[in-house]
Amino acid sequence: MIGHHPERDRIKLENVLTALGNPMRLAVVRVLAGGGEHACGTVLSKEISKSTLTHHWRVLRDSGVIWQRSAGREHLLSLRREDLDARFPGLLDAVLCGVDTDPETIDRYAP
Amino acid sequence: MIGHHPERDRIKLENVLTALGNPMRLAVVRVLAGGGEHACGTVLSKEISKSTLTHHWRVLRDSGVIWQRSAGREHLLSLRREDLDARFPGLLDAVLCGVDTDPETIDRYAP
Repeated sequence: MIGHHPERDRIKLENVLTALGNPMRLAVVRVLAGGGEHACGTVLSKEISKSTLTHHWRVLRDSGVIWQRSAGREHLLSLRREDLDARFPGLLDAVLCGVDTDPETIDRYAP
Repeated sequence: MIGHHPERDRIKLENVLTALGNPMRLAVVRVLAGGGEHACGTVLSKEISKSTLTHHWRVLRDSGVIWQRSAGREHLLSLRREDLDARFPGLLDAVLCGVDTDPETIDRYAP
C-alpha cells in the first residue's frame, strides 16, 4: 500500500464526509463503487492535472475511503466499501444514491 | 430567515457533505436532530468564539443543512430534516448513527 491508510476503527466520520464533499472525489467514488481495482489514470477526466489528482488520492486515502497500492508503474485504487459499511452503515449507499440525483455535477469529471 | 438558504432542489450533495465534515458542525446537527428550534448560543460550548460560531452557522445554512432565523435578539436554528431526507434519503440518519460511534470527538463541543 502507498502512504497512510487508517485502520478500520480509526476511520473518522468527519474525515470521510470531508473527503466525499467534493464533486471530483464523488466522481471517483462512483466509479470505484462498481467494484475492483482501477488504475488511477482511468477514473477521472484526462484533463485533470497530475498534482490535482495526487491531492485527491491523498484525501480519499488518508480519510479511509480508498485503498491505494502500487502495481508496477501503476497506482491502483479501490473503495474500502467493507470498512465504510461496517463503520458507518448506510452512509456510502446514501451518498451514492445522492450522487445519482445530481449527475451533471459529477459527470464533468468522468473519464 | 437570515442570509441565504438554498431551496430544497438546489441543495447540493457535496455542500451538505462538506458542511457535515466537521466535528463542531456534527455536534450542532446532533443537537438539532432532537427537533425544534434552538437559540444559537445554546447548541455549542460557551467557549467557542462568536466569529467561529458565525462561520459555522453560515456553512450549515448556505449548504442547506439548517434554517436560521431571527426572533427578537436571538438567532434560532433548526435542522432542515424534511428537505435533507427528501433530497438525500438515508444520508442524515447514517450520519447521525455515525456520530454515535465516535461520541468523544463531538462531545468536546457540546454545550
